[in-house]
Amino acid sequence: MPDYPQIILIECPDRKGLIHAVTDVLLRHGVNIVQNNEFVDHNSGRFYMRTAAEHTIEQSRVAGELQAVLPPGASVRFPTCEKRRIVIFATKEYHCLGDLLLRHAFGDLNAEIRAVISNHAELGDLVRRFDVPYHHIRHEGKTRAQHEAEILAELARYDPEYIILAKYMRVLTADFINRFPSRMINIHHSFLPAFTGASPYRQAYERGVKIIGATAHFVTEKLDEGPIIAQGILPVAHTYTVEDMIRAGRDVEKSVLARAVKLVLDERVFLCGQRTIIFE
Amino acid sequence: MPDYPQIILIECPDRKGLIHAVTDVLLRHGVNIVQNNEFVDHNSGRFYMRTAAEHTIEQSRVAGELQAVLPPGASVRFPTCEKRRIVIFATKEYHCLGDLLLRHAFGDLNAEIRAVISNHAELGDLVRRFDVPYHHIRHEGKTRAQHEAEILAELARYDPEYIILAKYMRVLTADFINRFPSRMINIHHSFLPAFTGASPYRQAYERGVKIIGATAHFVTEKLDEGPIIAQGILPVAHTYTVEDMIRAGRDVEKSVLARAVKLVLDERVFLCGQRTIIFE
Amino acid sequence: MPDYPQIILIECPDRKGLIHAVTDVLLRHGVNIVQNNEFVDHNSGRFYMRTAAEHTIEQSRVAGELQAVLPPGASVRFPTCEKRRIVIFATKEYHCLGDLLLRHAFGDLNAEIRAVISNHAELGDLVRRFDVPYHHIRHEGKTRAQHEAEILAELARYDPEYIILAKYMRVLTADFINRFPSRMINIHHSFLPAFTGASPYRQAYERGVKIIGATAHFVTEKLDEGPIIAQGILPVAHTYTVEDMIRAGRDVEKSVLARAVKLVLDERVFLCGQRTIIFE
Amino acid sequence: MPDYPQIILIECPDRKGLIHAVTDVLLRHGVNIVQNNEFVDHNSGRFYMRTAAEHTIEQSRVAGELQAVLPPGASVRFPTCEKRRIVIFATKEYHCLGDLLLRHAFGDLNAEIRAVISNHAELGDLVRRFDVPYHHIRHEGKTRAQHEAEILAELARYDPEYIILAKYMRVLTADFINRFPSRMINIHHSFLPAFTGASPYRQAYERGVKIIGATAHFVTEKLDEGPIIAQGILPVAHTYTVEDMIRAGRDVEKSVLARAVKLVLDERVFLCGQRTIIFE
Repeated sequence: MPDYPQIILIECPDRKGLIHAVTDVLLRHGVNIVQNNEFVDHNSGRFYMRTAAEHTIEQSRVAGELQAVLPPGASVRFPTCEKRRIVIFATKEYHCLGDLLLRHAFGDLNAEIRAVISNHAELGDLVRRFDVPYHHIRHEGKTRAQHEAEILAELARYDPEYIILAKYMRVLTADFINRFPSRMINIHHSFLPAFTGASPYRQAYERGVKIIGATAHFVTEKLDEGPIIAQGILPVAHTYTVEDMIRAGRDVEKSVLARAVKLVLDERVFLCGQRTIIFE
Repeated sequence: MPDYPQIILIECPDRKGLIHAVTDVLLRHGVNIVQNNEFVDHNSGRFYMRTAAEHTIEQSRVAGELQAVLPPGASVRFPTCEKRRIVIFATKEYHCLGDLLLRHAFGDLNAEIRAVISNHAELGDLVRRFDVPYHHIRHEGKTRAQHEAEILAELARYDPEYIILAKYMRVLTADFINRFPSRMINIHHSFLPAFTGASPYRQAYERGVKIIGATAHFVTEKLDEGPIIAQGILPVAHTYTVEDMIRAGRDVEKSVLARAVKLVLDERVFLCGQRTIIFE
Repeated sequence: MPDYPQIILIECPDRKGLIHAVTDVLLRHGVNIVQNNEFVDHNSGRFYMRTAAEHTIEQSRVAGELQAVLPPGASVRFPTCEKRRIVIFATKEYHCLGDLLLRHAFGDLNAEIRAVISNHAELGDLVRRFDVPYHHIRHEGKTRAQHEAEILAELARYDPEYIILAKYMRVLTADFINRFPSRMINIHHSFLPAFTGASPYRQAYERGVKIIGATAHFVTEKLDEGPIIAQGILPVAHTYTVEDMIRAGRDVEKSVLARAVKLVLDERVFLCGQRTIIFE
Repeated sequence: MPDYPQIILIECPDRKGLIHAVTDVLLRHGVNIVQNNEFVDHNSGRFYMRTAAEHTIEQSRVAGELQAVLPPGASVRFPTCEKRRIVIFATKEYHCLGDLLLRHAFGDLNAEIRAVISNHAELGDLVRRFDVPYHHIRHEGKTRAQHEAEILAELARYDPEYIILAKYMRVLTADFINRFPSRMINIHHSFLPAFTGASPYRQAYERGVKIIGATAHFVTEKLDEGPIIAQGILPVAHTYTVEDMIRAGRDVEKSVLARAVKLVLDERVFLCGQRTIIFE
């Protein structure tokens, strides 16, 4: 089995016999199924299926035959087996970015980090150590739109399939966000929906919680309300200052973001309204 | 060492030399310290200390001498070593109540459950199996004040030191709550401050969180905003329905409530504004 | 959807097209699939499938047709939808037993606890509170074989499908164990395979571990080596005495045992050599 | 408060009044205590105390006065506030080493990584990116003693206070180990004492555990039996292959090792026989 088998992703209205219909097409084409995941969301009445297949597939013929046996409006996708093009946005904190750079350097990320963009200079040294282009695009003295226009100009050169916000501390405009629907992943340093907005660790400290967390989510227009991909937690005690929480929280942030990025890159995440389906 | 040593609880403004001053008094009285915990809250500048002592102490003399060496306004308490009188409020769900009744029946709760009060009849059989009085006080057709007046009339007979809300699904009035300051413990079926109010599991489902939780807290006038004593969590997946979350959540609720009740009964909890200090 | 849908369990040598073959039979009989789980163990080359179906099924016809399309030697089972008959063995500790009795009393266990058998008298009061027969079968002055013969005589009256060892502290003979293959579930108070045998918490204390645990497993001839169904853990600190570990460990033991029992009763557990497949 | 306050570490036989005696000396010297931790190990009758103090202390005078009031044989230490000299040993896996290099590069490790020594060449590029010397010391064709002699020759230049085995896959001789008593920290890729020795993930897979883990410990002559500093765990399912466990386990290994290293460097770890006391 190669590291990255051919993935087939199906989404359509639910009806009886879908698995049978799909496996019928695959069987006729001699496809060997490595792993199969299905889920029916009973609220929306939608069917989701992810199949990891061993053999090379004649994609256009198989896709056509699947469309023919599935309900109208079915989505059938064969995501590429190639590494995804990603660009990482960061600000000053190194922990999430550094963790992704390390995994990338050793081939553990099913992606190519094409560039890192930051509104600050601090992380340039780190990124250059890994031979990845670093673009310091200042935001001072610019409107949000101006700043984002400069970012978009750089992005155009890299054509990213996904943008990872690795503790990027600037709010993005709806206009920017809508250019990358379900293609931007953010790490928020709280256990969402608790402590949205700024300074979540300070909020957590003041509320006196006994557990803190981190949330990786797709970015949507509504700040901190995008569909959640992964969450992690960490027990804290009254002895923790805000600074202690920030320090301890970093380890959770970086592992949660790395997990979410891997799930998305491995094509294990479906969107289902405001929720995600994770086929592990 | 007996199961429940003599506890000494001190709270006062911080200043240099407090531990030395306290241990000086205890040493002169021949007190052997089993466990010692201190904490200074740097925001409020307050000092908290819990000492578990082995020997019998002449409380009034020691208390007087401690007051003499501590800053003005210091609080010095010697909580009783006797089992606390508690009354449990419940509604229809058995899991938190049953767990406390079991621990109580086998002497694992440093308390005497003097009665259970419920606005429904369902749990009566269970409570009577454990030979604990059960009072079914209906709320239908009564104002909140009328209902609570009836509850207070029953409570008067039991004189509880603590009231445990073991999934009691009625909102209590500020008037009622203020009669038991820091003496009522509630279990909320979410990871507060996420999902306050009604139907937290439905809210959690709709938000698509990947982790659910439970929170035990002191009850204050502001619903779901009292100081947090203990929290616990449970990973969930997209396959969980709201009902699955409710079912799975019960195990977290009951263990979090039991832990919080034990911490309070063992005199390990100090209030520090909206936060708690837990000396474990 | 009823609480307990019809379950279909299939185990056979793996080959291409099995899911298609199974869904083909089910589709022809108009069976609506609620949940479908499959797994191929690549080491043994065996295929495992659990299907939860909505409609009433003509079991004998469907079973016959499934056998016809599956490889020779396939196992096809339609477990009963009725509550399972279980007998619980205990010794002196109440926590696991009490937890199961509570769930049973409120219908949360897909089982009927037909009796509790103990080699001690201590738990009789508790069990009788729940109107379950309690048999105190002393072991003193008897050989293991004699003691087990008495137990077997009682068991014969109850004809249990599963026996739950809820902190039963007697070693059973191979002869006894072999009468209930994959039908006895034990809770061991350690994170197996660490700390097999007696006094695991003392061993854990002496080894200085920072996390303790509990393991629910099927009972096989080799003590503490049966296939693991569920495990849970708890962080501990150097401040914990052996007694503190024992006390804290109880909450993990009872939740792990309850989880394992539920998984088995809900027919979510397949044996795969020394390992278990858990279809959640 | 500076990042690294002056730490005072005391270990001696227990007797009544020790805290009072210590705070008496500190108070006379005007020392302000930031954090105080004490522990009495009742098995050995030994007293352990860690004090974090705010002010600069005349170490020799304070140490002398403390010795005078403590029992004979007391150990009183004022560890340096300077960054510790460490050398990391690695083999081929990058994750633990890379994580430590990142923290080091951003000043989050209270240490200077003076060099990395490996028996393989693979990690050289990574280490050089961070401007840390990398020594590839082959073991092929050498006796263990010869190989270690070469390592010791390099070490002599760096004079490390601690050696971190970041997935160093060679067994060290007793002779080597005894040169660095309580100064070598290893990460073992299992939840010790389960799965000692080689291929712990394969062992875990074959035993069918539902939770895997990692253990950071001091290295002693007996392989995998040194005092445990930190442990972490990760749930696994029957769907995990050995390779999946290895991949997933890396994240736990790196966070557990980083935690243990930080605890040791921050002088929060006392040895107490085969156990550790962790003052957090």
